Amino acid sequence: MSAQKELRIGLVGYGFMGRTHSNGYKRANDFFPLEHRPVLKAVCGRTAEKAQAFADQWGYESIETDWQKLIERDDIDAIDICTPNDSHAPIAIAAAKAGKMVLCEKPLARTVAEAQTMVDVIEETGVKNTVWYNYRRVPAVTLAKNLIDQGLLGRIFHYRANFLQDWTISEDLPQGGEALWRLDANAAGSGVTGDLLAHCIDTAMWLNGGISRVSARTETFVKERMHNLTGKVEPVGIDDACLFMCDFNNGSLGLFESTRYARGHKALYTFEINGEHGSLAWDLHDLHRLSYFSHKDEGHLRGWRSIHVTDGDHPYMDKWWVPGLQIGYEHTFVHQVADFLKDLETGESTQPDFRNALETQRVCEAVLNSGKDGAWHNTGVES
Amino acid sequence: MSAQKELRIGLVGYGFMGRTHSNGYKRANDFFPLEHRPVLKAVCGRTAEKAQAFADQWGYESIETDWQKLIERDDIDAIDICTPNDSHAPIAIAAAKAGKMVLCEKPLARTVAEAQTMVDVIEETGVKNTVWYNYRRVPAVTLAKNLIDQGLLGRIFHYRANFLQDWTISEDLPQGGEALWRLDANAAGSGVTGDLLAHCIDTAMWLNGGISRVSARTETFVKERMHNLTGKVEPVGIDDACLFMCDFNNGSLGLFESTRYARGHKALYTFEINGEHGSLAWDLHDLHRLSYFSHKDEGHLRGWRSIHVTDGDHPYMDKWWVPGLQIGYEHTFVHQVADFLKDLETGESTQPDFRNALETQRVCEAVLNSGKDGAWHNTGVES
Amino acid sequence: MSAQKELRIGLVGYGFMGRTHSNGYKRANDFFPLEHRPVLKAVCGRTAEKAQAFADQWGYESIETDWQKLIERDDIDAIDICTPNDSHAPIAIAAAKAGKMVLCEKPLARTVAEAQTMVDVIEETGVKNTVWYNYRRVPAVTLAKNLIDQGLLGRIFHYRANFLQDWTISEDLPQGGEALWRLDANAAGSGVTGDLLAHCIDTAMWLNGGISRVSARTETFVKERMHNLTGKVEPVGIDDACLFMCDFNNGSLGLFESTRYARGHKALYTFEINGEHGSLAWDLHDLHRLSYFSHKDEGHLRGWRSIHVTDGDHPYMDKWWVPGLQIGYEHTFVHQVADFLKDLETGESTQPDFRNALETQRVCEAVLNSGKDGAWHNTGVES
Amino acid sequence: MSAQKELRIGLVGYGFMGRTHSNGYKRANDFFPLEHRPVLKAVCGRTAEKAQAFADQWGYESIETDWQKLIERDDIDAIDICTPNDSHAPIAIAAAKAGKMVLCEKPLARTVAEAQTMVDVIEETGVKNTVWYNYRRVPAVTLAKNLIDQGLLGRIFHYRANFLQDWTISEDLPQGGEALWRLDANAAGSGVTGDLLAHCIDTAMWLNGGISRVSARTETFVKERMHNLTGKVEPVGIDDACLFMCDFNNGSLGLFESTRYARGHKALYTFEINGEHGSLAWDLHDLHRLSYFSHKDEGHLRGWRSIHVTDGDHPYMDKWWVPGLQIGYEHTFVHQVADFLKDLETGESTQPDFRNALETQRVCEAVLNSGKDGAWHNTGVES
Repeated sequence: MSAQKELRIGLVGYGFMGRTHSNGYKRANDFFPLEHRPVLKAVCGRTAEKAQAFADQWGYESIETDWQKLIERDDIDAIDICTPNDSHAPIAIAAAKAGKMVLCEKPLARTVAEAQTMVDVIEETGVKNTVWYNYRRVPAVTLAKNLIDQGLLGRIFHYRANFLQDWTISEDLPQGGEALWRLDANAAGSGVTGDLLAHCIDTAMWLNGGISRVSARTETFVKERMHNLTGKVEPVGIDDACLFMCDFNNGSLGLFESTRYARGHKALYTFEINGEHGSLAWDLHDLHRLSYFSHKDEGHLRGWRSIHVTDGDHPYMDKWWVPGLQIGYEHTFVHQVADFLKDLETGESTQPDFRNALETQRVCEAVLNSGKDGAWHNTGVES
Repeated sequence: MSAQKELRIGLVGYGFMGRTHSNGYKRANDFFPLEHRPVLKAVCGRTAEKAQAFADQWGYESIETDWQKLIERDDIDAIDICTPNDSHAPIAIAAAKAGKMVLCEKPLARTVAEAQTMVDVIEETGVKNTVWYNYRRVPAVTLAKNLIDQGLLGRIFHYRANFLQDWTISEDLPQGGEALWRLDANAAGSGVTGDLLAHCIDTAMWLNGGISRVSARTETFVKERMHNLTGKVEPVGIDDACLFMCDFNNGSLGLFESTRYARGHKALYTFEINGEHGSLAWDLHDLHRLSYFSHKDEGHLRGWRSIHVTDGDHPYMDKWWVPGLQIGYEHTFVHQVADFLKDLETGESTQPDFRNALETQRVCEAVLNSGKDGAWHNTGVES
Repeated sequence: MSAQKELRIGLVGYGFMGRTHSNGYKRANDFFPLEHRPVLKAVCGRTAEKAQAFADQWGYESIETDWQKLIERDDIDAIDICTPNDSHAPIAIAAAKAGKMVLCEKPLARTVAEAQTMVDVIEETGVKNTVWYNYRRVPAVTLAKNLIDQGLLGRIFHYRANFLQDWTISEDLPQGGEALWRLDANAAGSGVTGDLLAHCIDTAMWLNGGISRVSARTETFVKERMHNLTGKVEPVGIDDACLFMCDFNNGSLGLFESTRYARGHKALYTFEINGEHGSLAWDLHDLHRLSYFSHKDEGHLRGWRSIHVTDGDHPYMDKWWVPGLQIGYEHTFVHQVADFLKDLETGESTQPDFRNALETQRVCEAVLNSGKDGAWHNTGVES
Repeated sequence: MSAQKELRIGLVGYGFMGRTHSNGYKRANDFFPLEHRPVLKAVCGRTAEKAQAFADQWGYESIETDWQKLIERDDIDAIDICTPNDSHAPIAIAAAKAGKMVLCEKPLARTVAEAQTMVDVIEETGVKNTVWYNYRRVPAVTLAKNLIDQGLLGRIFHYRANFLQDWTISEDLPQGGEALWRLDANAAGSGVTGDLLAHCIDTAMWLNGGISRVSARTETFVKERMHNLTGKVEPVGIDDACLFMCDFNNGSLGLFESTRYARGHKALYTFEINGEHGSLAWDLHDLHRLSYFSHKDEGHLRGWRSIHVTDGDHPYMDKWWVPGLQIGYEHTFVHQVADFLKDLETGESTQPDFRNALETQRVCEAVLNSGKDGAWHNTGVES
């Protein structure tokens, strides 16, 4: 054990994502054989008490209350950014300039302009980097990727994805502050587009290639909410719901929807892809299953198969338990940590890196712009 | 049309089954090309008014109030028995002796002794006969039969079936009389065993061969109910629930359960069969689907397929609509009529005939006997 | 029975829809108590032989090969139009002018202009009329309508619907002629928009009120196909797929998709509607189920309920079998016939009538226009 | 952190269960606020190399190759037994006599006699003890327990459970040795009865009270297998499949089945319980869902609800992520560790303890005995 190389982590932000990432760091080596082992050096948050409580809970060795000081520390190799979206760019840029690796929570930034600057700096400094689009590493989703890459579906005609939630329907819910920064346009940049659709877009372009143009409809159902920072009722600046149609570079059509007003759905991220030889479908509420239809099955025996993705020959699953025993949401972060550590050995970039996440940012921005003027917008995504 | 041969029907009983059979007679020729066409000659019931109302509703040409007179009529070719179980034997025997074809609602009889006499007479007279175990002719069930016969499953290890209902839980429900004869031991012979398990047993032995021995547990949860015929609270003589384990002649194990006390299930008849190469499962609440698991699928792509049995290459389905459009419960009777009419042309027996239904009766009786003494009972079914 | 009033039917067209309608006429009185009874007077088709075969199969008393002669006959009360879309307008207009009732297959017409003329004539003549948007009369869909009208969902935020098929993926499939007129732009007017989305739009506006504006994306994946009428490879004029976003007059957002290139889906018409207090979802592949989520359920017990719509207190279901026993696709037509016959007694219009179906036509046309120029189009639907 | 009390663990066995338990110890404090923290002092296995590899992987401080030495160590508070069933009794008894707490993998023992001795010693020594029937701590199963205890189901009529697997169908699979001791009657005591049905019985009696008598059918489909320890083909002594019917003390009927020959099922543990007011159902392949039917819902709105057990008001779930994000199999062990640590504070026994697990052993033994003679056997379970 002593022979293992350390990857000393400095975590900025101790919210929901701070917990998922910390769990990833602590568990990867229990299950994956790796040369490196993460060491939880420090967690940074504005409030010392809360940071200390988090450090105690998760076993961080120390705390900081100023992320610039964290970045300056010599005993830290990698900065992990789990703060609201408005601080991703300054922290990532400073960290890269200080020669730290950067692991940044999604979305990369609030705008393409911000994201482009981040990519420019990160590539100039050459530091290792990745963005936490964790759903790529659900075993069922990785399996879908493998099957598509093997050509099982043939020519693709359709891609559709939803991300449906229902937690902001009440008009009494305030906006802003630590717990509700996702409803504050300044902190979040956008509403469901950056929070939820960004996931859908990242997966979609990973599976089906670039999105070339979009036409969107955004809506804010509750126009005003009490703001936790000002104590006043303020206009709501984010999109509560966003629908968009798109073209992929491969000629297939896409349809996306996201909302926080779909009663009955907690976090229902679903996608489906239809090709000439078959189709695949998945949803986050039963993330351990992949649905597969093969037109090559004998005619009278054709049907959608529900693949319980828990076997040793399924992606990542040889490292976990035995067939039939499902893993959950948090394991996606363990997988991303494990892949990041493995890539340290090989020197490969851990996808999606900043450059790749910039493409998702381009689509998000085109969607938001289309939502404003109702026209089709090119995204500039070429791959 | 005038060239078609007539099959002149005399129906005894105008309850639930009287309706399903009548519908079968009226619709078969619209969908199936057949030489014969049923003609609804007469319906027979004790109460003239009700019989007439039924005749008017369904288009029967005449009524009778005495089934013996119906049997004597020259203008009738076939007697269809839809009365409570206690009258199956006398009507069937008289009809056969009068040279009429006999179509008898299931179960064939209340006891093996009754059923054996019916078989003896029917075979002596040589009249064409069939028993309405209609679920064999759900297209998904027929498909299951075809796949098993083709050897798709290999050696069979397990068979399990349930028939779960919840309509008799209330203690205020009376027993007996026209509407509730199924709760009256005299009229019905038994409770769920003859009413529901008989279906399960018929399908099971059709798909998986004979059941050699059984061990059962029967229970009557509500011990007394008001009797509609006597106007008094009387002991309940039927089985409210019945569970049994069994051996099939092919060495596989069976497990069966039926009850009217399974809250939330209206008519949930399900079966599943497990073989070395694959498995099949079906349920009546979604009767247009067959679940199929094939171990021969590539390892990482294995999963249960939900086959939507609505294609032209599925049994019976080329006669109905287009792929994706489901048929329902009543069509099983249309199929049995169509097969009966077709068999008139070929001379084949329409399965299950009386002899075949006697085997199911043997298993039912062994189950009821085992329910009494708790021991394993041989059924005498050899095939 | 003799006391029943007759509704003498003249059917034009003997294809798929000719069969579903005929079945409706023949079965309605077996199940629904009605003053009127349809009489199958004549079926009309260009080819005498085929018309005669259909008449023999279904029991039509006579045939015609010229629909104008059919309309002139004195022994016919109602003309039922089951021909390709390009002949709906001339037949309906002539029939109305001849004082016949008109039952027209959907979509009402190829264009708003055609449909408007039809409505003008039909309303001028005052003849009873209806359009066969049959899915309104799936019991589960009618139940959804009732629940929404009772206010169970509260303010509506979202509506989404798909109609996914996969039968035209092969490039070898020709277009045009009797069997494949749906692929011929001249005969059909449009592709999936008129064929499939028209159903989705009809249901959507019935459940959720008018659609005010749309933005669409149409696509033709296979650009050329052999034409059965010319014998040559010709450009394909129809839309193979159509996606659109829309606004409803009540402020909710809609998202619709239809295609014949979604491998694995035969006729998967699905809809979902999300309101502040609950949500409903349905799909045609399991048409006897309605999914319902109630936010008013106790917090830790909330979940989507799968309602098996087969009970006596469900719409239309008291007329069929017993709880748990499902009906199928064809019953929607029986229900529309039964409602039409009942409305003859009361004088009410059987919805959707021509005027109502014109609204769906407006949305379809706006969708097709938006598919051409990529802009948002107002529909002009105000209700 | 330094203020936390330590619970120093000595683990015996480093197989599948060694991993699940170790994971439980390492993660409980990250998610649950607890006074105690497990410390992984030592892992014990016969082969030093393998034990060391396991220690390195999981972070155990030391290894032992003789479990008696492990028990003698002063720096260990609790012995966790993850070895094959034949060694549970000697290790547990020695550990208890040495004053160590004992956490024993299920089943408690091979026989009632063994188990009784264990209970006697453990109660005499008074050491804290628990048995890893982990499925009680699936949040959906705990929720079921809470709902039943609140009386939501009313009088219970039926309980049924299956545990279906398919991994031993091949006749080429050998028996015995480290990997396959579950197929070796000497090591395991029994086949599916102790391995799988023991889980079902534990849950059943927890939810529905004691099982009073049973009638069983056991079968060994593959009679001989190569034995890894002898290198010879030897008779197979375990039950490959086991079915049993039973009576519960509360008057309800039970039906259980387990097999390793149900093609298509990896680890499909399912249960369903039917009461007068409602029913509950669950399965391990989608362990984050609980199905609930309430007869108290309004008639036309009744249906099975699929509760996605991931909300803050569901058992254990306030400690994990956010609504909609599922946890997996391994979390059941984390929960049992957390409960064990919490009970250290309160002094309560962590259920199931040895005494409680003895009841499950009684039922297993009655089942195996009934499988031999075909008669009904009383279990002696009274609670």
